[in-house]
Amino acid sequence: MRDNLGVNLTVTELTEQLIASYARVGGINHLDGKNLPSKTAMASITVDLLRVLFPGYFDEKSIHSSQLKVEIAGLMDSILSRLADEVYKSLEYAAPEKTEKSDTGRLAHSLTLDFLSNLPRVRDLLQTDTEAAFQGDPAALSKEEVIVAYPFVEAIAVQRLAHLLYLQKIPLIPRIMTEWAHGRTGIDLHPGARIGSHFFIDHGTGTVVGETAVIGRHVRLYQGVGLVARSLAGGQALKGQKRHPTIEDRVTIYANATIVGGETVVGTGSTIGASVFLDQSVPPYSLVTPEKIQIKVTSKQNKFKADFQI
Amino acid sequence: MRDNLGVNLTVTELTEQLIASYARVGGINHLDGKNLPSKTAMASITVDLLRVLFPGYFDEKSIHSSQLKVEIAGLMDSILSRLADEVYKSLEYAAPEKTEKSDTGRLAHSLTLDFLSNLPRVRDLLQTDTEAAFQGDPAALSKEEVIVAYPFVEAIAVQRLAHLLYLQKIPLIPRIMTEWAHGRTGIDLHPGARIGSHFFIDHGTGTVVGETAVIGRHVRLYQGVGLVARSLAGGQALKGQKRHPTIEDRVTIYANATIVGGETVVGTGSTIGASVFLDQSVPPYSLVTPEKIQIKVTSKQNKFKADFQI
Amino acid sequence: MRDNLGVNLTVTELTEQLIASYARVGGINHLDGKNLPSKTAMASITVDLLRVLFPGYFDEKSIHSSQLKVEIAGLMDSILSRLADEVYKSLEYAAPEKTEKSDTGRLAHSLTLDFLSNLPRVRDLLQTDTEAAFQGDPAALSKEEVIVAYPFVEAIAVQRLAHLLYLQKIPLIPRIMTEWAHGRTGIDLHPGARIGSHFFIDHGTGTVVGETAVIGRHVRLYQGVGLVARSLAGGQALKGQKRHPTIEDRVTIYANATIVGGETVVGTGSTIGASVFLDQSVPPYSLVTPEKIQIKVTSKQNKFKADFQI
Repeated sequence: MRDNLGVNLTVTELTEQLIASYARVGGINHLDGKNLPSKTAMASITVDLLRVLFPGYFDEKSIHSSQLKVEIAGLMDSILSRLADEVYKSLEYAAPEKTEKSDTGRLAHSLTLDFLSNLPRVRDLLQTDTEAAFQGDPAALSKEEVIVAYPFVEAIAVQRLAHLLYLQKIPLIPRIMTEWAHGRTGIDLHPGARIGSHFFIDHGTGTVVGETAVIGRHVRLYQGVGLVARSLAGGQALKGQKRHPTIEDRVTIYANATIVGGETVVGTGSTIGASVFLDQSVPPYSLVTPEKIQIKVTSKQNKFKADFQI
Repeated sequence: MRDNLGVNLTVTELTEQLIASYARVGGINHLDGKNLPSKTAMASITVDLLRVLFPGYFDEKSIHSSQLKVEIAGLMDSILSRLADEVYKSLEYAAPEKTEKSDTGRLAHSLTLDFLSNLPRVRDLLQTDTEAAFQGDPAALSKEEVIVAYPFVEAIAVQRLAHLLYLQKIPLIPRIMTEWAHGRTGIDLHPGARIGSHFFIDHGTGTVVGETAVIGRHVRLYQGVGLVARSLAGGQALKGQKRHPTIEDRVTIYANATIVGGETVVGTGSTIGASVFLDQSVPPYSLVTPEKIQIKVTSKQNKFKADFQI
Repeated sequence: MRDNLGVNLTVTELTEQLIASYARVGGINHLDGKNLPSKTAMASITVDLLRVLFPGYFDEKSIHSSQLKVEIAGLMDSILSRLADEVYKSLEYAAPEKTEKSDTGRLAHSLTLDFLSNLPRVRDLLQTDTEAAFQGDPAALSKEEVIVAYPFVEAIAVQRLAHLLYLQKIPLIPRIMTEWAHGRTGIDLHPGARIGSHFFIDHGTGTVVGETAVIGRHVRLYQGVGLVARSLAGGQALKGQKRHPTIEDRVTIYANATIVGGETVVGTGSTIGASVFLDQSVPPYSLVTPEKIQIKVTSKQNKFKADFQI
């Protein structure tokens, strides 16, 4: 069926075309460069960090106290060594040419240790988040269901971890981690966002929290909510500026609402209705609702009637 | 490069900090408890249930009639035993202390058999859903394309299965199943929702159907539509109440519309426009549209002009 | 604990019920038919295509120029043979009964070669897309971060590949590819859409671009934006008609806006605000914004105050 000679020739030609394209089209090749952090490795490290944060929940079996110390020490040892390797690649990728490899190695190791020493603090915050999720959602049968099944728990845990690495100014890795969670949950929380305790996002698909957003305590968001930049026409020139809104304590923002702008402040205790577009600050205890909709009753029968015959 | 002695000491210290945190921060540990149902096991069982529901579609090769009985009997035997194990863990997790293990085992087995005996009924419904998807979407080339490629098919199949387990009052497993599908498709259908025949969700990313929603026949939803609760300020106190809307037959709801409230009824044959926020009932054959938008034509050139030079 | 005899009998009965259901409920079985293209195989082929398009980015290690030719030749050889197999199944699925298997095989091989010879052109376009993403997003630290972490890059790369196969009229495979990317990124780009250079979707969860949409150059979309059909009440009868809007050059469309209709044209340089529903054409340099929202400040304290006690 196949002319093998022809195929081989053609594959050779296709390969040559591609190699010419690599030489011609820059910017999307990564050739002869330093190794980038591995997405696969970061995914498996992140899963292990979740196992350490929620012991017994993301393991196949419940852990018994008697094994706990051995189990956790083994996990931590493995995470430290694997994560330090990826941090090393990140630092080397960003480092000036002359930096000594051994210096970078030592820095990667010490940054990773610092990061891991903050895990108990992350657990303190995550405990308040799962509490807020359980208290806030009457569909939640138990805290166990929240931790095992709610995508929010994974998304916020990964963001709180990535935020620490972001504060340590480690490149690439924080965003790889939050985009891993984004892909799994549909929730897009930038590692730069500062998020207070007792946070909860229900459903969460399409929710976006931008890099310079600041969120208080007891804030609740729904699916499709965006805390985003006003206009990015300025592009890279806007880097470092506060571009995303500030949400004060005890604010609730319903589905698909979009709040824009770095100087926009939603005052404490406010409620923002579904599909609202808000580009200005509102004082505490505001209720922001969309304009009235139009309802028209048609006398004729529904247009689908003809299409479907049960 | 690394000081192994230092590392080991520090890992020991980090581990001790974490163990102290497990003792101090409750609610997000699962230690010394009964085994929870496994998400990994439930994912593989759900895939096998899809293979039984759509024979030949989720297998690597088409199945021939001659092998059908042997193939399906093998699958069903394996599903029964694995699912009964997970149901057992769910029941044990919820059971009072004194329940005999053998009683729980027998109950798990019989609930699983009951569940499996309903698969033909689920197939009857899924046939109407794929029919509605194919009929309703001119982009669909064939029913084969719908079943193989549309995320909706996976989401509704898993919801209809999980709904049976929800009605059997099996804890944890139904939500684990629908959240597995949510993660893969972006479509968040609560296992509690009652959904009629000939259902179709096009695109579906971000669509949410809440626990107590009731949906008639021939209903069509688009991406980002929410059938959600009015306000959950009441939290867990609202558990068991009807919190999500009722959608009657032959209703179409366009992208990103949000419909709230347990007493809200959208009458038969109605159409709800994109991004509408609806918090009241509408009579049959209503057309609900958002307010007029504002269109302003600027004389100056587009602001992106300066940024991009082709 | 289990009565094995009972179990076996019952599994037999369940199997018989299901086999009866396969005979009774048509349309969702694929029995005795030709093999369909494999989703698993297409996923792994697509990953390898991404490796060829962005050399060194989706590999565990950076590739060195010295190995490049051998590496790429090996990948291309493997992709050609595996993809030709899947194309063969697609063609056979759609082919009239009498077509000779060897003819279909030759056609599959030649279509696959044609497709692969277009990869350098796809790279040209993808270079403009990653450039637009980096230039347009101040949160992007580097082009490396964009390529490694942004879901948009994967979504547009897969769409541009699938669009070539769509133009070759190969059934099933193009949609399997874009739905694979949709599941991973939440971005739903139909293989039929014609998309110009320098395209960028930020965040992207829930963004939908329909089959007959036409998009110019330097267009930027946000999460939840839909370029969709007006009303699909006509169902399959609308197949082949232009049902989705045309977006001219340098247009920006903010989060959750929905634009409908095949004759709708958004003029060059226009900006469409968040959550806008647009069902008419707008001239060049239009600014389309939603109606004013209502802001009400309540004197009473926030209703959540009572629920949460820190």
